[in-house]
Amino acid sequence: MPKLNENYLNVQDSYLFAEIARRVKAYEEAHPDKAGNIIRLGIGDVTRPLTESAVEGLHEAVDEQTKAETFRGYGPEQGYEFVRRAVADYYERNGVKVDPDTVFISDGAKSDTGNITELFAQDNVILVPDPVYPVYVDTNTMDGKKIIYMNGTEENNFLPMPDDSVKADIIYLCSPNNPTGACYNKEQLKAWVDYAAANEAVILFDSAYEAFVSEPELPRSIYAVEGAEKCAIEFCSLSKTAGFTGTRFSYTVVPKELVFSSSDGRKMSLYDMWNRRQSTKFNGTPYIIQYAAAKVLSEKGMKECMENISYYMENARVIADTLRKKNIPFTGGVNSPYIWFKCPEGMESWELFDYLLEKIQVVGTPGAGFGVNGKYHFRLTSFGTHEKTKEAMERFEKLF
Amino acid sequence: MPKLNENYLNVQDSYLFAEIARRVKAYEEAHPDKAGNIIRLGIGDVTRPLTESAVEGLHEAVDEQTKAETFRGYGPEQGYEFVRRAVADYYERNGVKVDPDTVFISDGAKSDTGNITELFAQDNVILVPDPVYPVYVDTNTMDGKKIIYMNGTEENNFLPMPDDSVKADIIYLCSPNNPTGACYNKEQLKAWVDYAAANEAVILFDSAYEAFVSEPELPRSIYAVEGAEKCAIEFCSLSKTAGFTGTRFSYTVVPKELVFSSSDGRKMSLYDMWNRRQSTKFNGTPYIIQYAAAKVLSEKGMKECMENISYYMENARVIADTLRKKNIPFTGGVNSPYIWFKCPEGMESWELFDYLLEKIQVVGTPGAGFGVNGKYHFRLTSFGTHEKTKEAMERFEKLF
Repeated sequence: MPKLNENYLNVQDSYLFAEIARRVKAYEEAHPDKAGNIIRLGIGDVTRPLTESAVEGLHEAVDEQTKAETFRGYGPEQGYEFVRRAVADYYERNGVKVDPDTVFISDGAKSDTGNITELFAQDNVILVPDPVYPVYVDTNTMDGKKIIYMNGTEENNFLPMPDDSVKADIIYLCSPNNPTGACYNKEQLKAWVDYAAANEAVILFDSAYEAFVSEPELPRSIYAVEGAEKCAIEFCSLSKTAGFTGTRFSYTVVPKELVFSSSDGRKMSLYDMWNRRQSTKFNGTPYIIQYAAAKVLSEKGMKECMENISYYMENARVIADTLRKKNIPFTGGVNSPYIWFKCPEGMESWELFDYLLEKIQVVGTPGAGFGVNGKYHFRLTSFGTHEKTKEAMERFEKLF
Repeated sequence: MPKLNENYLNVQDSYLFAEIARRVKAYEEAHPDKAGNIIRLGIGDVTRPLTESAVEGLHEAVDEQTKAETFRGYGPEQGYEFVRRAVADYYERNGVKVDPDTVFISDGAKSDTGNITELFAQDNVILVPDPVYPVYVDTNTMDGKKIIYMNGTEENNFLPMPDDSVKADIIYLCSPNNPTGACYNKEQLKAWVDYAAANEAVILFDSAYEAFVSEPELPRSIYAVEGAEKCAIEFCSLSKTAGFTGTRFSYTVVPKELVFSSSDGRKMSLYDMWNRRQSTKFNGTPYIIQYAAAKVLSEKGMKECMENISYYMENARVIADTLRKKNIPFTGGVNSPYIWFKCPEGMESWELFDYLLEKIQVVGTPGAGFGVNGKYHFRLTSFGTHEKTKEAMERFEKLF
């Protein structure tokens, strides 16, 4: 009889968005007259269509697949050279040098942040922020790894800093952060790189929201910090940058400097291991999507993406302005599509959820869904339309 | 300091195709006059372009992504309902009933056969055939699982049958087989299902080459055998069926009956676990590819696929006829794109590789690359053009 992976018994049910959907549905059924009035600013999915470069690239690549002479079958599991180079060029335009050979193309940062856990043995101490993107916790729980938390709170602007008394082997950082929208500055990231160097720890850096950073002095990659190439793996994606949530393209940078000793003193390279993992358990991202992604990553392609991002950031500004007017403390909204605010009047986050739904038919995400430290906070996203976002904030302003 | 997964130290270097490439390159450099003469019948990649339905579907879905009203962002991690149903319908047309809700859409059978190992604890006995598709071995080695082998030999037509004295928990079967092209009949598969039932084992059934089965009495799915839904997970793909090796679409069926007890007696369902695994570490297959795949899986779409498959099978026939003429024993070539033959004149497989390259500039795959039992066998594939395949076999015929 097969022995199953019993760590799965310890994984929490991912009920957050299901529970939101359940409560919204119950409200709609109880108030059919108000159902059409509901504005959803909860889910972190984009709404703007694909850019011109992406569409052009997709059509062109599909046409290539119609002729035997230009048909492409299996590609390199790591991604085609042309797109790995396009990623490196994009980094370079943002002031960061990355070796294209260390760029691995994949179908999603969620896949890669999940699968990377396979490279690590079970007896590691994993340090994760709270509030947190639940995937970091769930994937390590499935592996039976020991997770410890660091607190993101109002006091530290939801940007936990290293604590020398804590000995972590693997550290998850996400900046600009999901769900809090907070963004580390260079000095703060340097403190993390210094901590990792001192403790020989590995930083798993999720930069999926880097394109939303508008303040030029803020780092968009951990490799903007000297020495990070010796301790950090970076995960990024076109999901939010280019509206690829349904099209799927991501990249992970694994520097060759990340070499550690096995228990009997043999050298093991995380680059080699990830390369072996991907070659064995992955067959590459679809050619047509790689082709389109290379166009998106060009200067012209990115200019188009930035137009969509500006559209979303205008929504963020509207939300942030409303909160400021009401003296409600918040993070995000400037360098991030997320706005994370303190629930007014001492409410808990699920309480506020029900209150907003009931009173003004606005749906957001209760902070409690992201960890203990989210109990009194609430997340709104800027991925709606201008009209709906403005309307939601007008209702909010009248309510409080 | 992070403790790395030291099981990676036990994974063999995957040098087979790299070594083939090295030897071919060395030959070309030594004989520049012969370089243009080389015919490659080694690698298992398709060469015919995408079918009309696939191309039409891809273009249509891309167009949908250009407008906000029809744009699709995140989809269900398990795949869209419409394509899960298209898979179930395709099964039904082949005489097998599958619940669409148990069909998980993914980017490749390689990903899924690799990732499924996560659901099983380390202390299982994994039974794998030799010769074997190396991914089954490598992925379990990375997990530190114990692998035992069953022999595929000339005596059993490279179709190993269950041995009641062997106690396996998890069994890998691939039929039609890669690399041997051998195909189990229904009686033989029933013996495996009976063994699994008696031992409460799980069968991981790889049916990636099912569309090449031409003899109607041979099963194209393990679910053609009664009781298989209680013990088997099936992996299939459009890679070879529809030329999707570079486009990426696969599906895995995990029946809900696969429920086992944890060490403290709690019920654990492999369906629930795989659902949780995919929801946590995967964000779904690109929408445009799911849309195109549904078209491919329709009756019209499959008719087009069968034209390409007939093209390849004509090559297989040419290869098989030549071997028959020379009285060389082989498997495959009828219900499979692969032909696996005994090296003539007592040669070992790498010896034959060099001999064919040197004498007639034909490149194949040495059986030794697939396991101990491949030492005296050789694989040719039918994925070339008619012209090249015929030419290669004419040279072969003259040589022996």
